This record gives sequence, C-alpha cells and structure tokens, in this order.
Amino acid sequence: MSHPKLVQGSAPFKLLTAGTPNGHKASILLEELVAAYPGFKYDFEGISFKDNEQKEEWFLSVNPNGRIPAAIVYPKEQVGAPHYVFESASITLWLAEHVDTRHEFSFTDDFEKSEALSWVFFMHGGLGPMQGIQGTNTLLSRAIANHFFRYAPEKIPYGIKRYLDETKRLYSVLEDRLAGKRENPATTEGGKTQGGERDYVVGKGKGKYSFVDINIYPWVRMHKWAGVDSLDEYPNLSKWLNRIAARPAVQRGLDVPEKNAYNPDMSEEEQKQKAEDAKKWIHGSSDKK
Amino acid sequence: MSHPKLVQGSAPFKLLTAGTPNGHKASILLEELVAAYPGFKYDFEGISFKDNEQKEEWFLSVNPNGRIPAAIVYPKEQVGAPHYVFESASITLWLAEHVDTRHEFSFTDDFEKSEALSWVFFMHGGLGPMQGIQGTNTLLSRAIANHFFRYAPEKIPYGIKRYLDETKRLYSVLEDRLAGKRENPATTEGGKTQGGERDYVVGKGKGKYSFVDINIYPWVRMHKWAGVDSLDEYPNLSKWLNRIAARPAVQRGLDVPEKNAYNPDMSEEEQKQKAEDAKKWIHGSSDKK
Repeated sequence: MSHPKLVQGSAPFKLLTAGTPNGHKASILLEELVAAYPGFKYDFEGISFKDNEQKEEWFLSVNPNGRIPAAIVYPKEQVGAPHYVFESASITLWLAEHVDTRHEFSFTDDFEKSEALSWVFFMHGGLGPMQGIQGTNTLLSRAIANHFFRYAPEKIPYGIKRYLDETKRLYSVLEDRLAGKRENPATTEGGKTQGGERDYVVGKGKGKYSFVDINIYPWVRMHKWAGVDSLDEYPNLSKWLNRIAARPAVQRGLDVPEKNAYNPDMSEEEQKQKAEDAKKWIHGSSDKK
Repeated sequence: MSHPKLVQGSAPFKLLTAGTPNGHKASILLEELVAAYPGFKYDFEGISFKDNEQKEEWFLSVNPNGRIPAAIVYPKEQVGAPHYVFESASITLWLAEHVDTRHEFSFTDDFEKSEALSWVFFMHGGLGPMQGIQGTNTLLSRAIANHFFRYAPEKIPYGIKRYLDETKRLYSVLEDRLAGKRENPATTEGGKTQGGERDYVVGKGKGKYSFVDINIYPWVRMHKWAGVDSLDEYPNLSKWLNRIAARPAVQRGLDVPEKNAYNPDMSEEEQKQKAEDAKKWIHGSSDKK
C-alpha cells in the first residue's frame, strides 16, 4: 500500500515540500508555470521536519537522501510508473524542460542553456550549502545565547567567520555578474562585454527572468537569517531581489506549503524549532541520530 | 590582449584545472571521450593555487567564481566568440550533450536523463561541499597537530563531528542506491524495484557507466582524506569504486594536470601546502584575503 502522500491527487505533478529556500525554488517556478500555462496544475504535500517525516521509508522511496523538496510526476493516462525527481535544482530543470514548452522561463540557445547550468550549479554547490551552514550556525548561536537549550547540543563555531565570509564573497560574485562585469563572450552581442547592468542572471542583453533566478532568489532573500544584515554593499543584487519579489507568482510560491515559513519576527520558541529544523534540512540528519 | 592560457591551442576545447576531485570529474570524462571518439581532442592548462592564479582577472573572466575547473569552448572555423563553462558538473553536462553524440556516457530516455540530474545535484550540493569541508578540516587539524603552523590560523572545529557524520550518511545513501534499495519506478523494468545490486548509479537494469558516476567517483576515491578510513561499511560502494578505478581512461584523467596530485604518502611539507590549497579551492578564498 502506498502512503497517502504518494497517491496522485487532482494533478499530474506533486511536490513534497516544506517552507525552506530549497522548497521555495520549486514552488515559485510551479506558480509561475500555473500563471503562464492555463492547463497546468500541481498538488503539494507539506513534510513535517518536527516529525522527521523526510526520513520515513515512504519519503525515502522518492528521495533516497531524505530531504525536501522531492517531486512525483504521474504517468499520463495512468499508463506506466511514476517518475521521482529529487534535489531542488533537478526539479526546476524537469519543469523547465517538460512543462515550460514555450520557454517562458528557460532558454533555447545552446550557449544560454549551458550558461544557465553553470549558474545553477554555482548556486547549488556554493551559495546554497555555505549560506545554509552559516544560517544554521547563526540560528543555533542565537538559540544558545538566548538559553533556549539547557546545554549546547554541540559546539557552535562562533569564532569561525569562514561561512559568513564565504556567503558574502558569493554575493559579490552575483553582484559583479548583475553589474555586467562578468559576461560570457558566446552569449554577449558581438562577443563584446555588455558593460551595462543586467536585470537577470542569465540571457543575452540585460538577461531574461528564468529558472536560474528562481534557483537563487529564495536564498538571497534569506540574507538576514544568514547574518548578512543588509544588501547595501550589493546594489545590483538588491535591485534584482526587489525585481523578483515584485512578481505575484513569486509571492504565491513563498506561501507553499504554508504562509510565513520564515517570519523575521518569529517568537523565541519558533526560533528554537527553526534552528532544530534547519539542522535537519541542511545536514540531512539531527544530532539525535 | 588575451592571457596566454586563454588562447586556443590545438583543440577546440580547453580545460583550466588542477588536481582536485572537481578537476578530475572533467578530466576523466574528457579522457573517456578521447578514447571513444577518435576525432575528439582537448587541451588543458594547470592553474596554480599557490600563486592564487584562480583569482586573477583573466581567470575570473572565464569563471566569475574563481574556482577550478573552468572550460573554454572555441568557436568552429574561428567564427563567433568562445563559450565559457564553469562548475565541474556543468562542464560534464556540456561534454555529455555536445561531444558524447552517441551517448556512450549519457542517456537518451527522458526519465533516465532526469534521474541523472537528480544524482548529479545530490553530488554537487551534498557530498561535494560536505566532504570538502570535512577534508579541509581534517588536513588542517593534522597540520596543526603536526606543528606545521606556528599558530592556528583559525580555530578548527575538532569537536564537531557534523561534517564527518554527514559525509558518512551521504555514502550510505549511495550504498543503498547501489544495493538496489532505491529505485525510481519510471526507470525500473515494469515499474517494480529491481531488487538486485547495481553496477552504476543511474540507468535501467544494473545501470550504465555515465557522467553521473564520473561526477561522484573522484570524491569517494578521496574518502581517507576526509577521515573515512575504510569503505568496509559500504560494500557496494567499494565494489563500484574499484569498477570505475579499473578503467584506463579514469586513471589517465587522474593524471591531469599532474600525476599524484593527492598522494597518500605525501611529505609533511606537501601536506601543509595541500591544506592551504584546499582552503582556496573549497572556500574560494584564503584566510589572508
């Protein structure tokens, strides 16, 4: 018997998710696709970190790594077996290729497609893990400083600025890109650097809003959570952040699977729970394991 | 004027690299392609961490993130501008799509292609960063314990088992996959789990040797470096490692850009230099910055 959360609902695509930056990458692109393609629908199921639901056997059957988001693509006409997709970026690439058939949020040119992948991997292997570690450390440090824990469950490296410095360095890489300083000759008109500011991370000219921006936005949005109090040092990144945030589909995506998953004004008790949760979704396990 | 290392050599593809796991992903796939496609050639240039060459302006024009590997695809017939590719996984995807035209090391089925991406992102956002951090910590800890440094340049979190535990957990995810416990219904014959062991991470049946294995192998190969002394707990992963290592092209790829980049018997002086280097290629910057 299948777990109820694995069973197909009213749509051919189901997202298993939680209100984290990685979950929001998928839900924002899904909301953009719903707005752009009237026939497209999706379902979602919230996964509870508190109950360690992402480590239950039925969830591991979809994502062996036990982390959200994961997705189920149900077969057409009920023929064939469901397709399981895991890792946030992989889900957005599936949607870009199989749902975004008019390329509203993706690319057709071979060089732009490749450039999009370079920036998505930059996000996935660089900014995501580094800011994730930094964010957990910040949350845990605060929780300990506030005596949320009777004893520190582990030694938090207060003194190590490494992950904060690295997060800031990665923001500066994005800032330079959006400032037009880092152009790929093959996708720049006439092979010359553009010299002007970009609106979006990838695409010829000033760029095109795409799944690449959607992969990056939910993390940069959480800059305060990771100890970067202001984006003043990154003026183009700051403008880009506001440009993305102004899109109604983006705001709808941030409310999946629940509203205000990361409220900056959360209570102390909520902060404590978020710190515990973050350890589970970033490191894939809790200390108790 | 272009930097000499940017200028086209005798081949239409140039790899800017160093002897690290991420560099080896690209050079192993390149060597496999050279063996499989008689007309294909590539050049490479070694990048010196010691000289911080990866942060020089000419290198940043190729990879704004200042890390190896990066690649230059030169235009055919000298018409058009060169295409720059960065991030190890992105380079392997470019090669899989544009050079591996017979799909010797890649997939054609939509579900297998998607599954390949899920596992590549699992590697790129999970095992790579976690083992990288763990490996640097281990090297630095050893260097400090051996009094290589007159004073500790930063506090090393000896006490934090977090990254070692996470590296081991990620190995166990791969072990379960190779043991046949985690199958995607859409790519499993008849939609049933296979139940047998796999030879390779992705592909129907027992799997197909592909760029996915090539993305994972150079990191698992370095397990001792990251403090995982033996793979005895992961018998299928261990067999898979030997299966990949037995390929002549893999061994040739490990010698790019130099032989014995990570010799387990390196001298104390070499260990010290490797510890400093590792900080640069994993965190993208040195402490001195």
